[in-house]
Amino acid sequence: MDKLLRNIGKHVAFTEEENALISSLVKVRQLKRKEFLLQQGQLCSSIYFVNRGSIRCYFESKDQRPCTLMFAFEDWWITDMRCFIKQLPSDTHIQALEASEVVVISKSAFDHLFEEMPKFERVFRILMQNAYIREQSRMLEHLTCSAEERYRKYIAKYPRIEQLISQKHIASYLGITPEFLSYTKKKAKKENS
Amino acid sequence: MDKLLRNIGKHVAFTEEENALISSLVKVRQLKRKEFLLQQGQLCSSIYFVNRGSIRCYFESKDQRPCTLMFAFEDWWITDMRCFIKQLPSDTHIQALEASEVVVISKSAFDHLFEEMPKFERVFRILMQNAYIREQSRMLEHLTCSAEERYRKYIAKYPRIEQLISQKHIASYLGITPEFLSYTKKKAKKENS
Repeated sequence: MDKLLRNIGKHVAFTEEENALISSLVKVRQLKRKEFLLQQGQLCSSIYFVNRGSIRCYFESKDQRPCTLMFAFEDWWITDMRCFIKQLPSDTHIQALEASEVVVISKSAFDHLFEEMPKFERVFRILMQNAYIREQSRMLEHLTCSAEERYRKYIAKYPRIEQLISQKHIASYLGITPEFLSYTKKKAKKENS
Repeated sequence: MDKLLRNIGKHVAFTEEENALISSLVKVRQLKRKEFLLQQGQLCSSIYFVNRGSIRCYFESKDQRPCTLMFAFEDWWITDMRCFIKQLPSDTHIQALEASEVVVISKSAFDHLFEEMPKFERVFRILMQNAYIREQSRMLEHLTCSAEERYRKYIAKYPRIEQLISQKHIASYLGITPEFLSYTKKKAKKENS
Protein backbone atom coordinates (compact mmCIF):
# COMPACT_ATOMS: atom_id res chain seq x y z
CA MET A 1 0.00 0.00 0.00
CA ASP A 2 3.04 2.27 0.48
CA LYS A 3 3.26 3.30 -3.17
CA LEU A 4 -0.37 4.46 -3.24
CA LEU A 5 0.05 6.46 -0.03
CA ARG A 6 3.24 8.05 -1.37
CA ASN A 7 1.47 8.91 -4.64
CA ILE A 8 -1.40 10.76 -2.95
CA GLY A 9 0.95 12.15 -0.28
CA LYS A 10 2.82 14.04 -3.04
CA HIS A 11 -0.15 16.41 -3.29
CA VAL A 12 -1.36 16.67 0.33
CA ALA A 13 0.08 15.48 3.67
CA PHE A 14 -2.12 12.78 5.22
CA THR A 15 -2.00 11.75 8.90
CA GLU A 16 -1.38 8.15 9.95
CA GLU A 17 -5.07 7.75 10.81
CA GLU A 18 -6.09 9.03 7.39
CA ASN A 19 -3.63 6.67 5.69
CA ALA A 20 -5.05 3.81 7.77
CA LEU A 21 -8.60 4.68 6.65
CA ILE A 22 -7.53 4.78 2.98
CA SER A 23 -5.71 1.44 3.31
CA SER A 24 -8.73 -0.19 4.96
CA LEU A 25 -10.98 0.74 2.02
CA VAL A 26 -8.88 -0.57 -0.88
CA LYS A 27 -7.61 -3.96 -1.94
CA VAL A 28 -4.67 -5.29 -3.90
CA ARG A 29 -5.10 -7.46 -6.99
CA GLN A 30 -2.53 -9.50 -8.90
CA LEU A 31 -2.86 -9.80 -12.66
CA LYS A 32 -1.32 -12.27 -15.07
CA ARG A 33 -0.03 -11.11 -18.44
CA LYS A 34 -2.98 -10.41 -20.77
CA GLU A 35 -5.52 -10.69 -17.90
CA PHE A 36 -8.40 -8.21 -18.17
CA LEU A 37 -9.21 -5.84 -15.34
CA LEU A 38 -12.29 -4.81 -17.28
CA GLN A 39 -13.89 -5.75 -20.58
CA GLN A 40 -16.01 -3.59 -22.88
CA GLY A 41 -19.63 -3.88 -21.65
CA GLN A 42 -18.81 -4.85 -18.04
CA LEU A 43 -19.84 -2.41 -15.31
CA CYS A 44 -16.88 -0.14 -14.58
CA SER A 45 -17.02 -0.07 -10.77
CA SER A 46 -13.41 0.69 -9.76
CA ILE A 47 -10.42 2.91 -10.30
CA TYR A 48 -6.95 1.32 -10.28
CA PHE A 49 -3.54 2.47 -9.07
CA VAL A 50 -0.61 0.54 -10.60
CA ASN A 51 1.82 -0.84 -7.99
CA ARG A 52 3.83 -2.79 -10.55
CA GLY A 53 3.64 -3.69 -14.24
CA SER A 54 1.94 -2.08 -17.21
CA ILE A 55 -1.71 -1.77 -18.16
CA ARG A 56 -3.45 -0.68 -21.33
CA CYS A 57 -6.89 0.85 -21.82
CA TYR A 58 -8.22 0.42 -25.35
CA PHE A 59 -11.34 0.63 -27.43
CA GLU A 60 -12.20 -1.98 -30.02
CA SER A 61 -14.13 -0.50 -32.93
CA LYS A 62 -16.73 -2.38 -34.96
CA ASP A 63 -14.10 -3.38 -37.52
CA GLN A 64 -12.06 -4.87 -34.61
CA ARG A 65 -9.34 -2.24 -34.92
CA PRO A 66 -8.09 -1.56 -31.37
CA CYS A 67 -7.38 2.09 -30.43
CA THR A 68 -5.31 2.71 -27.30
CA LEU A 69 -6.70 5.43 -25.08
CA MET A 70 -3.95 5.22 -22.48
CA PHE A 71 -1.18 3.18 -20.89
CA ALA A 72 -0.48 3.10 -17.15
CA PHE A 73 2.76 2.05 -15.49
CA GLU A 74 3.98 1.93 -11.87
CA ASP A 75 2.64 4.95 -9.93
CA TRP A 76 -0.10 5.77 -12.49
CA TRP A 77 -3.89 5.66 -12.18
CA ILE A 78 -6.20 4.05 -14.73
CA THR A 79 -9.91 3.44 -15.32
CA ASP A 80 -12.59 4.16 -17.90
CA MET A 81 -13.32 7.49 -16.24
CA ARG A 82 -16.66 8.29 -17.87
CA CYS A 83 -18.12 4.88 -17.05
CA PHE A 84 -16.56 4.79 -13.56
CA ILE A 85 -18.04 8.16 -12.55
CA LYS A 86 -21.45 7.38 -14.03
CA GLN A 87 -21.34 3.69 -13.02
CA LEU A 88 -21.98 2.51 -16.56
CA PRO A 89 -20.91 -0.51 -18.62
CA SER A 90 -17.39 0.18 -19.85
CA ASP A 91 -16.68 1.54 -23.33
CA THR A 92 -13.16 0.11 -23.20
CA HIS A 93 -11.04 -2.90 -22.31
CA ILE A 94 -8.43 -2.55 -19.56
CA GLN A 95 -5.77 -5.26 -19.79
CA ALA A 96 -2.43 -6.10 -18.15
CA LEU A 97 0.40 -6.10 -20.71
CA GLU A 98 2.64 -8.07 -18.31
CA ALA A 99 2.28 -9.59 -14.81
CA SER A 100 1.09 -6.61 -12.77
CA GLU A 101 -0.20 -5.58 -9.36
CA VAL A 102 -2.88 -2.92 -8.87
CA VAL A 103 -4.64 -1.30 -5.94
CA VAL A 104 -8.40 -1.38 -6.51
CA ILE A 105 -10.62 1.43 -5.19
CA SER A 106 -14.34 0.83 -5.67
CA LYS A 107 -16.71 3.69 -6.51
CA SER A 108 -18.32 3.41 -3.06
CA ALA A 109 -14.91 3.59 -1.30
CA PHE A 110 -13.96 6.50 -3.57
CA ASP A 111 -17.15 8.42 -2.69
CA HIS A 112 -16.73 7.57 1.00
CA LEU A 113 -13.20 9.02 1.00
CA PHE A 114 -14.50 12.26 -0.53
CA GLU A 115 -17.13 12.53 2.20
CA GLU A 116 -14.70 11.76 5.02
CA MET A 117 -11.65 13.67 3.82
CA PRO A 118 -11.63 17.00 1.99
CA LYS A 119 -7.91 16.36 1.44
CA PHE A 120 -8.75 13.39 -0.76
CA GLU A 121 -10.89 15.73 -2.84
CA ARG A 122 -7.84 17.96 -3.34
CA VAL A 123 -5.71 15.03 -4.49
CA PHE A 124 -8.29 14.07 -7.09
CA ARG A 125 -8.87 17.67 -8.17
CA ILE A 126 -5.14 17.82 -8.97
CA LEU A 127 -5.05 14.37 -10.62
CA MET A 128 -8.09 15.19 -12.79
CA GLN A 129 -6.60 18.57 -13.67
CA ASN A 130 -3.36 16.88 -14.78
CA ALA A 131 -5.26 14.25 -16.75
CA TYR A 132 -7.30 16.96 -18.50
CA ILE A 133 -4.14 18.91 -19.37
CA ARG A 134 -2.49 15.73 -20.73
CA GLU A 135 -5.50 14.87 -22.93
CA GLN A 136 -5.76 18.43 -24.19
CA SER A 137 -2.05 18.44 -25.17
CA ARG A 138 -2.54 15.11 -26.94
CA MET A 139 -5.52 16.55 -28.85
CA LEU A 140 -3.53 19.63 -29.81
CA GLU A 141 -0.75 17.40 -31.15
CA HIS A 142 -3.31 15.46 -33.20
CA LEU A 143 -4.64 18.69 -34.67
CA THR A 144 -1.29 20.33 -35.39
CA CYS A 145 1.41 17.67 -35.89
CA SER A 146 2.12 15.06 -38.54
CA ALA A 147 2.18 11.40 -37.48
CA GLU A 148 5.98 11.54 -37.59
CA GLU A 149 6.12 14.58 -35.29
CA ARG A 150 3.66 12.91 -32.89
CA TYR A 151 5.91 9.86 -32.71
CA ARG A 152 9.01 11.98 -32.05
CA LYS A 153 7.27 14.03 -29.34
CA TYR A 154 5.91 10.90 -27.66
CA ILE A 155 9.34 9.24 -27.54
CA ALA A 156 10.90 12.45 -26.22
CA LYS A 157 8.25 12.61 -23.46
CA TYR A 158 8.46 8.90 -22.52
CA PRO A 159 11.98 7.78 -23.50
CA ARG A 160 11.55 4.26 -22.03
CA ILE A 161 8.19 3.57 -23.68
CA GLU A 162 9.68 1.48 -26.49
CA GLN A 163 11.21 -0.94 -23.99
CA LEU A 164 7.88 -1.32 -22.19
CA ILE A 165 5.30 -1.39 -24.98
CA SER A 166 5.11 -3.23 -28.31
CA GLN A 167 5.23 -1.31 -31.58
CA LYS A 168 1.67 -2.21 -32.52
CA HIS A 169 0.33 -0.79 -29.23
CA ILE A 170 2.36 2.42 -29.58
CA ALA A 171 1.02 2.78 -33.15
CA SER A 172 -2.56 2.32 -31.92
CA TYR A 173 -1.98 5.06 -29.29
CA LEU A 174 -0.61 7.46 -31.91
CA GLY A 175 -3.42 6.71 -34.36
CA ILE A 176 -1.15 5.33 -37.10
CA THR A 177 -0.58 1.89 -38.62
CA PRO A 178 2.29 -0.30 -37.32
CA GLU A 179 3.74 -0.17 -40.86
CA PHE A 180 3.84 3.62 -40.82
CA LEU A 181 5.42 3.59 -37.36
CA SER A 182 8.11 1.21 -38.60
CA TYR A 183 8.79 3.47 -41.62
CA THR A 184 8.96 6.55 -39.32
CA LYS A 185 11.40 4.83 -36.95
CA LYS A 186 13.70 3.77 -39.79
CA LYS A 187 13.66 7.31 -41.16
CA ALA A 188 14.46 8.80 -37.72
CA LYS A 189 17.31 6.28 -37.26
CA LYS A 190 18.79 7.18 -40.67
CA GLU A 191 18.64 10.90 -39.88
CA ASN A 192 20.35 10.38 -36.53
CA SER A 193 23.13 8.15 -37.87
CA MET B 1 -22.66 37.09 -10.49
CA ASP B 2 -25.82 34.97 -10.18
CA LYS B 3 -25.00 32.71 -13.12
CA LEU B 4 -21.59 31.81 -11.68
CA LEU B 5 -23.06 31.03 -8.26
CA ARG B 6 -25.79 28.90 -9.86
CA ASN B 7 -23.15 27.06 -11.90
CA ILE B 8 -21.04 26.07 -8.90
CA GLY B 9 -24.16 25.58 -6.76
CA LYS B 10 -25.22 22.74 -9.10
CA HIS B 11 -22.43 20.61 -7.60
CA VAL B 12 -22.38 21.70 -3.93
CA ALA B 13 -24.69 23.90 -1.82
CA PHE B 14 -22.91 27.09 -0.72
CA THR B 15 -24.09 29.34 2.14
CA GLU B 16 -24.81 33.03 1.63
CA GLU B 17 -21.52 33.91 3.36
CA GLU B 18 -19.61 31.57 1.08
CA ASN B 19 -21.30 33.04 -1.99
CA ALA B 20 -20.42 36.52 -0.75
CA LEU B 21 -16.76 35.52 -0.35
CA ILE B 22 -16.66 34.07 -3.88
CA SER B 23 -18.32 37.20 -5.32
CA SER B 24 -15.84 39.47 -3.51
CA LEU B 25 -12.88 37.70 -5.12
CA VAL B 26 -13.92 37.80 -8.77
CA LYS B 27 -14.62 40.53 -11.29
CA VAL B 28 -16.76 40.91 -14.39
CA ARG B 29 -15.30 41.90 -17.75
CA GLN B 30 -17.06 42.99 -20.93
CA LEU B 31 -15.59 41.97 -24.26
CA LYS B 32 -16.19 43.36 -27.71
CA ARG B 33 -16.48 41.02 -30.70
CA LYS B 34 -12.98 39.73 -31.64
CA GLU B 35 -11.43 41.13 -28.42
CA PHE B 36 -8.75 38.88 -26.93
CA LEU B 37 -8.95 37.69 -23.33
CA LEU B 38 -5.50 36.23 -23.78
CA GLN B 39 -2.91 36.06 -26.55
CA GLN B 40 -0.32 33.37 -27.20
CA GLY B 41 2.76 34.25 -25.11
CA GLN B 42 0.95 36.39 -22.50
CA LEU B 43 0.97 35.12 -18.91
CA CYS B 44 -2.19 33.07 -18.37
CA SER B 45 -3.21 34.34 -14.94
CA SER B 46 -6.99 33.78 -14.85
CA ILE B 47 -9.80 31.33 -15.46
CA TYR B 48 -13.03 32.64 -17.04
CA PHE B 49 -16.70 31.79 -16.59
CA VAL B 50 -18.92 32.88 -19.50
CA ASN B 51 -21.94 34.94 -18.41
CA ARG B 52 -22.98 35.77 -21.96
CA GLY B 53 -21.62 35.35 -25.49
CA SER B 54 -19.21 32.89 -27.06
CA ILE B 55 -15.48 32.47 -26.68
CA ARG B 56 -12.90 30.44 -28.60
CA CYS B 57 -9.57 29.05 -27.45
CA TYR B 58 -7.21 28.29 -30.35
CA PHE B 59 -3.62 27.54 -31.17
CA GLU B 60 -1.86 29.13 -34.11
CA SER B 61 0.76 26.85 -35.60
CA LYS B 62 3.96 28.06 -37.29
CA ASP B 63 2.26 27.95 -40.71
CA GLN B 64 -0.47 30.24 -39.25
CA ARG B 65 -3.10 27.51 -39.43
CA PRO B 66 -5.40 28.02 -36.42
CA CYS B 67 -6.57 24.90 -34.52
CA THR B 68 -9.50 25.30 -32.16
CA LEU B 69 -9.01 23.61 -28.80
CA MET B 70 -12.42 24.55 -27.39
CA PHE B 71 -15.40 26.86 -27.54
CA ALA B 72 -17.20 28.21 -24.47
CA PHE B 73 -20.72 29.59 -24.32
CA GLU B 74 -22.97 30.89 -21.52
CA ASP B 75 -22.46 28.83 -18.35
CA TRP B 76 -19.11 27.31 -19.50
CA TRP B 77 -15.61 27.75 -18.13
CA ILE B 78 -12.54 28.49 -20.24
CA THR B 79 -8.80 29.07 -19.86
CA ASP B 80 -5.49 27.66 -21.11
CA MET B 81 -5.49 25.16 -18.25
CA ARG B 82 -1.85 24.03 -18.41
CA CYS B 83 -0.54 27.59 -18.43
CA PHE B 84 -3.06 28.80 -15.83
CA ILE B 85 -2.16 26.09 -13.32
CA LYS B 86 1.59 26.48 -13.88
CA GLN B 87 1.37 30.29 -14.30
CA LEU B 88 3.13 30.20 -17.67
CA PRO B 89 2.89 32.25 -20.86
CA SER B 90 -0.12 30.96 -22.78
CA ASP B 91 0.16 28.43 -25.61
CA THR B 92 -3.14 29.61 -27.05
CA HIS B 93 -5.26 32.61 -27.94
CA ILE B 94 -8.61 33.10 -26.18
CA GLN B 95 -10.91 35.41 -28.14
CA ALA B 96 -14.54 36.57 -27.99
CA LEU B 97 -16.48 35.51 -31.11
CA GLU B 98 -19.21 38.07 -30.33
CA ALA B 99 -19.85 40.75 -27.66
CA SER B 100 -19.50 38.73 -24.44
CA GLU B 101 -19.34 39.02 -20.67
CA VAL B 102 -17.09 36.86 -18.50
CA VAL B 103 -16.39 36.47 -14.80
CA VAL B 104 -12.63 36.56 -14.20
CA ILE B 105 -11.07 34.52 -11.38
CA SER B 106 -7.35 35.15 -10.89
CA LYS B 107 -5.01 32.29 -9.93
CA SER B 108 -4.49 33.86 -6.48
CA ALA B 109 -8.27 34.12 -5.87
CA PHE B 110 -8.66 30.54 -7.16
CA ASP B 111 -6.00 29.23 -4.74
CA HIS B 112 -7.46 31.30 -1.89
CA LEU B 113 -10.89 29.74 -2.46
CA PHE B 114 -9.38 26.25 -2.28
CA GLU B 115 -7.72 27.11 1.03
CA GLU B 116 -10.84 28.67 2.52
CA MET B 117 -13.48 26.28 1.21
CA PRO B 118 -13.14 22.54 0.73
CA LYS B 119 -16.48 22.72 -1.09
CA PHE B 120 -14.84 24.79 -3.83
CA GLU B 121 -12.31 21.99 -4.20
CA ARG B 122 -15.19 19.57 -4.80
CA VAL B 123 -16.70 21.80 -7.48
CA PHE B 124 -13.40 21.92 -9.36
CA ARG B 125 -12.72 18.21 -8.88
CA ILE B 126 -16.03 17.57 -10.66
CA LEU B 127 -15.43 20.22 -13.35
CA MET B 128 -11.93 18.87 -14.07
CA GLN B 129 -13.27 15.31 -14.14
CA ASN B 130 -15.93 16.32 -16.68
CA ALA B 131 -13.38 18.21 -18.77
CA TYR B 132 -11.06 15.16 -18.77
CA ILE B 133 -13.91 12.86 -19.81
CA ARG B 134 -14.89 15.27 -22.61
CA GLU B 135 -11.33 15.47 -23.96
CA GLN B 136 -10.90 11.69 -23.76
CA SER B 137 -14.13 11.15 -25.73
CA ARG B 138 -12.94 13.67 -28.33
CA MET B 139 -9.61 11.83 -28.62
CA LEU B 140 -11.40 8.50 -29.00
CA GLU B 141 -13.51 9.96 -31.80
CA HIS B 142 -10.35 11.20 -33.53
CA LEU B 143 -8.82 7.73 -33.31
CA THR B 144 -11.88 5.76 -34.37
CA CYS B 145 -14.15 7.92 -36.55
CA SER B 146 -13.89 9.39 -40.03
CA ALA B 147 -14.06 13.18 -40.39
CA GLU B 148 -17.65 12.80 -41.57
CA GLU B 149 -18.64 10.75 -38.52
CA ARG B 150 -16.93 13.29 -36.23
CA TYR B 151 -18.95 16.08 -37.81
CA ARG B 152 -22.23 14.15 -37.42
CA LYS B 153 -21.50 13.29 -33.77
CA TYR B 154 -20.53 16.88 -32.99
CA ILE B 155 -23.73 18.28 -34.48
CA ALA B 156 -25.79 15.65 -32.64
CA LYS B 157 -24.10 16.62 -29.34
CA TYR B 158 -24.41 20.39 -29.90
CA PRO B 159 -27.39 20.92 -32.21
CA ARG B 160 -27.23 24.74 -32.00
CA ILE B 161 -23.49 25.00 -32.71
CA GLU B 162 -23.95 25.90 -36.39
CA GLN B 163 -26.04 28.93 -35.46
CA LEU B 164 -23.38 30.11 -33.00
CA ILE B 165 -20.09 29.33 -34.71
CA SER B 166 -18.80 29.90 -38.25
CA GLN B 167 -18.04 26.95 -40.51
CA LYS B 168 -14.30 27.67 -40.59
CA HIS B 169 -14.10 27.57 -36.77
CA ILE B 170 -16.10 24.33 -36.57
CA ALA B 171 -13.77 22.83 -39.21
CA SER B 172 -10.71 23.89 -37.20
CA TYR B 173 -12.20 22.21 -34.08
CA LEU B 174 -12.86 18.98 -35.98
CA GLY B 175 -9.39 18.98 -37.57
CA ILE B 176 -10.65 19.19 -41.17
CA THR B 177 -10.56 21.84 -43.89
CA PRO B 178 -13.55 24.18 -44.37
CA GLU B 179 -13.85 22.74 -47.90
CA PHE B 180 -14.19 19.19 -46.58
CA LEU B 181 -16.74 20.34 -44.00
CA SER B 182 -18.78 21.99 -46.73
CA TYR B 183 -18.64 18.78 -48.83
CA THR B 184 -19.69 16.68 -45.78
CA LYS B 185 -22.62 18.98 -45.01
CA LYS B 186 -23.88 18.88 -48.60
CA LYS B 187 -23.65 15.09 -48.55
CA ALA B 188 -25.51 14.85 -45.24
CA LYS B 189 -28.23 17.21 -46.54
CA LYS B 190 -28.68 15.11 -49.71
CA GLU B 191 -28.97 11.91 -47.69
CA ASN B 192 -31.59 13.48 -45.40
CA SER B 193 -33.69 14.97 -48.23
